[in-house]
This record gives sequence, structure tokens and C-alpha cells, in this order.
Amino acid sequence: MRHHPHSLAEAVLAGERRGLARAITLIESTRADHREAAEALLADLLPHTGRSIRIGISGVPGVGKSTFIEAFGLHVIGLGHRVAVLAVDPSSPRSGGSILGDKTRMEELSRRPEAFIRPSPAGGTLGGVARRTREAMLACEAAGFDVVIVETVGVGQSETAVADMVDLFLLLLVPGGGDELQGIKKGIVELADVIVVNKADGDLAAAAARAAAEYRNALRLLRPARSGWTPPVLRCSALSGAGIGEVWDTVTAFRERPGATAEIKGRRADQARSWMWNEVSETLLSTLREDDAVGRLLGELEAAVTSGKTTPTAAAQELLARFLAGKKS
Amino acid sequence: MRHHPHSLAEAVLAGERRGLARAITLIESTRADHREAAEALLADLLPHTGRSIRIGISGVPGVGKSTFIEAFGLHVIGLGHRVAVLAVDPSSPRSGGSILGDKTRMEELSRRPEAFIRPSPAGGTLGGVARRTREAMLACEAAGFDVVIVETVGVGQSETAVADMVDLFLLLLVPGGGDELQGIKKGIVELADVIVVNKADGDLAAAAARAAAEYRNALRLLRPARSGWTPPVLRCSALSGAGIGEVWDTVTAFRERPGATAEIKGRRADQARSWMWNEVSETLLSTLREDDAVGRLLGELEAAVTSGKTTPTAAAQELLARFLAGKKS
Repeated sequence: MRHHPHSLAEAVLAGERRGLARAITLIESTRADHREAAEALLADLLPHTGRSIRIGISGVPGVGKSTFIEAFGLHVIGLGHRVAVLAVDPSSPRSGGSILGDKTRMEELSRRPEAFIRPSPAGGTLGGVARRTREAMLACEAAGFDVVIVETVGVGQSETAVADMVDLFLLLLVPGGGDELQGIKKGIVELADVIVVNKADGDLAAAAARAAAEYRNALRLLRPARSGWTPPVLRCSALSGAGIGEVWDTVTAFRERPGATAEIKGRRADQARSWMWNEVSETLLSTLREDDAVGRLLGELEAAVTSGKTTPTAAAQELLARFLAGKKS
Repeated sequence: MRHHPHSLAEAVLAGERRGLARAITLIESTRADHREAAEALLADLLPHTGRSIRIGISGVPGVGKSTFIEAFGLHVIGLGHRVAVLAVDPSSPRSGGSILGDKTRMEELSRRPEAFIRPSPAGGTLGGVARRTREAMLACEAAGFDVVIVETVGVGQSETAVADMVDLFLLLLVPGGGDELQGIKKGIVELADVIVVNKADGDLAAAAARAAAEYRNALRLLRPARSGWTPPVLRCSALSGAGIGEVWDTVTAFRERPGATAEIKGRRADQARSWMWNEVSETLLSTLREDDAVGRLLGELEAAVTSGKTTPTAAAQELLARFLAGKKS
């Protein structure tokens, strides 16, 4: 695959979907020459980025996430927006699609020219997938997509990674059967700026109302992380479309709060800075782990530490001494 | 101050409180020669550590934490245990005591030979304070203290740091006035293995009962982080001593659940491993930040990143290239 960064940048900036797809493929590639070309491309695109609302959406399989994103995406397209849907799924296999990759999940949305749907980059570390998704997000914005959704299945630390790259984090839930509420991972409720209880129709309507009320009570116990915004708990039926408009209205209200613009801008600046330090930290650590001199030592040291034979600090010092000594050679 | 690590180790192992205090002072010192002596000391003490229950206690100022810890400490001493109380408080000033340092806060407990109370190490990074506290904890265990409490005022990420070094995390709360519950930081409720509502006496008794019920409901929404343990919400009056025994009984029940021993052992092994990697990561990052070649570049790069002039990944690569090139010289 030959890449011409500058003409590729032009294609992206012109809003060409195939150009955007090629750009993201380049961004996802781990080949060193592709990495270099991707960095050059992103440098060209950077001044044209940032002009979107970035929404993270998390929900376990079975909650109706695809149906929801499709309904939501079609709704905002109807209002004149262009929607990109990306995904963070570190379990995604290298060959074939990821769980979140099958376009037939959101078939109607995928056929709209105002929509762009991309499966998660293939697996590896969460850090690697997150970085590539952040870069893909920039490319989507440069291509003129003004609503960017990043979805995650809610495995491991994916939600935190997604919350760290978006302006607003939406948690999608379903009502459980009877009194038993669907268990949700600790910490996730606290990340959410909006909670939506889906499948609030038919037999589940009453259960959905109860679930929404219980989550509202739970959220009252948590001091709001941002001033002037208590995370609302909404109900919808993605299948019928009921309540979808209200979700978008809530996103709009979030953006239009007094001080929201400055807050979102400040949040993005913090996210960019912490992304830089994450990159530095991860690369340093992986450089260390792959260092020949360190490698032989590492297994022994971890075993000694976990079995209480050496203090973690002493082990860390040994690792670092071996690594930094090697660098001087 | 002259330190003789081996005789100091003997003093600690003999349970001498002055020896333990000197050992912890050595551990807290940032002088390179003291660091070396501290590492040698800890290597000697390590085989004698681990034989305690490690309890983290978090609560904002005004919640009655000192009164609670004193009542709790005296109770367990009455049952034949020896209690050490350490603190994580990164806001602690270098000279004089920290907020959590004044022994008059727990005067009766501090006068007991079976108790050892130590203020937080002086300020600096949370990582540095956490490391020194973990090492102090090992010294206390080697000296025969079998209940080790690590307290924190709940500022910043202190709770997470404390939760990462203990077997059980206890959150102390007070009832708010009327219906308005005391706001608590997002994420903290999720760390807690036990929640205790203090000041459940007199006028506040009914409010405390309501608060306890509301927290119980909120906790039901969170999937238990450990199997077989739903965090209980207890009530007590530290001032009168009511409910203190029940708190200790709950700690005992926690330790005696089926599978608890293996779980706690596994948790400690994970904590030790992640402590090692935290040390590696922090030292690498601080080595990088203090590197002359990098220093000049850093401010410019951070500004470029936060203002959107350069991608975080490109900035990270530049920093790393400058750092690693320097290492080769």
C-alpha cells in the first residue's frame, strides 16, 4: 500500500470517505514507515480538527448499543450533522472483524453518506488501540464529521480510556428482571455524564422506569464532577426510536450550559497533555521491557517480588539500573 | 543521624518502638546514602513482614476520623492486638507536623505501648509518599504490629493509593443535614469494602440510619468487586464507642470468608508487582523530566500540545528521542 501523505490529507479535508478510510488504515498500521507517514498526515490535518462534539458510549453486549447508535446517528443526520462512529475494543482479533466491526450491526446507518463507521483497530494493548482511535478521531473531524462517537463494550479499562478522549460519556443500560438491577462495573457510573436506560418499552417499561429512578438516587450520592451538571438518567427505546431525540437534546444542553465551551476546551487540553505523557510513559516502559539486558532479569524479579523475597523498590532499582546502563553503551 | 542498618533491624525485630521510629525516619529520608541504608534495612526485615491485617481508612476532615481510629485502636488493643497507624497526606508540609500528624488527636491511643502512631511522610508527590508509607508498613509488621491502619484525608488520588496497599478499605462518613447527603468523591464509594456512618448518636441518629440505608441501596447497584462480599454499611458513634466492636467483627468476618486467605495473598502479590512497575514508571518519568536535554524542550512541547499545534504522539516521540539519545552519550 503506497501512501502519499499530502494528497491523502487533501482527500480527507475534502471529506472523501474513501480517503478517510485509507487515512485511518495508515494510522492503524504498525509498520515504521507507515507510522512516519501517519504522523506527517496528522500534522497536516491538525489545524482542521476539534470541530465536533465527541461522545463516548459504553454498554455491555445485549444492551442494544448498535441499535441505539444507529437510531441516534440517523436522528442527528436528520438534523444536518455528519456522524463518525469509532470503537475501542482491545479484544479485537487481527484478522477479520472485531465484535464491534460488523457493519451489518448498523446497516441503515452505514449506507448513509453522512455517516462513517469504522471497527476498532485490531487488538494489542489498550494504550495502542486508544492512541490509534484518538488519531482516527482527529482524521474524522478534519473530514468534516461534527459528531464523533467512540463506542466500547465495557471490558477492562476501556471505559476510562474512552472517557479520556471524549467531551461527554454516555452509559447505556438495560433494566434487569424484577428487583435485581443489572450489575455494572464499579467506577463506570461515576464516569457517566448521561445514563440511558434502553429497551424501555413493552414488558420492560415499568422495570425501566424503576431502574431509572434507582440510578438517579445512586447518582445523587456522588458529588457532580463538573459544575452545573448532574448526570441525567433517561429512558429510550432504540428499536422504536422513542426517547432518542431527548438524548440528543441532553447532549445539546450539556454543550450549552454556561461555561461549557471553556470547560470542554480545558478538558481537551488536559486530555492532550495527558495523552502525551501516557505515550511517553508507555513507550519508555515498553522500551524497557524489550531491552535485552532487562528481559532476562524481569521474570526473576517479578517472581521475587510477588513471593515477597525482594522489596518492589529494590527490584525496580535493579531493572532501571540495568536499563539505563545499557543506554549508555 | 548515623544509621547502622543491621542493629536497627534487630531493634525493629525486637519490637522496640524507638527503633521502629528511627527506621521509619530513615525510610522517609531522601538522602541517597539514607536510601541505600533503608533498602538494606528493608531487605533484612522483609522475611518478617506480612503478618498483619492492613486496613485503609478514608474520611474528610470533620467526619471524626481521629476519634474513630482511637476508639477502634483501643478496642483491638483490648483484644490483644498491636496497632500501628500510618498516614498518607501529600499536602503535609516539610517542617512541622502534617494535618494528620498531631498526636494530640489520638492522645489516649498514643500513650499505649501497644500502639504506634506516625504522621504522614512530608509532602512531595503522592507516589513518593505512598512508597514511603508502604515501606513503613513493612517495618511496622516486622516490629510485631498485627493491625496496621493507613489513614488518608481523601484528597486527590490518595484513596486509590491507599486502597492499593491495604487488604481492606474502610470509608468513614457522616450523615448530612436533612435529606442532603454529604457529597462524596466519585469513585470512593466503589473502593470501599466497609462503609461506616459515624456520629450516629443523639440528634443525628435518625439521619445516620437514613444515610446508611441510602448508601446500602447505592452499593446494591455496584457488582461486588470481590466474590462473596457485599460492602456492609455500619453505624457507630466513635465518641461513645457504640458500634466500634461491630466494625472489628466485620473486619474479622472479611478475613474469615471462604477463600479470603488466598484472595488477600493474591491481592498482596498483585499490589507488590504493580508497586514495582509504578516505581519503574515513576523513576523513568522523573529521570526524563530532570534530563537537561529534555528540560528545555518540555515546556515548549506541552504548550504546543495543549494549544493543538502538535499531536501528542509527535511531541512524545520528540521528548523520547531527545532523552534516549542523551542516554547513549
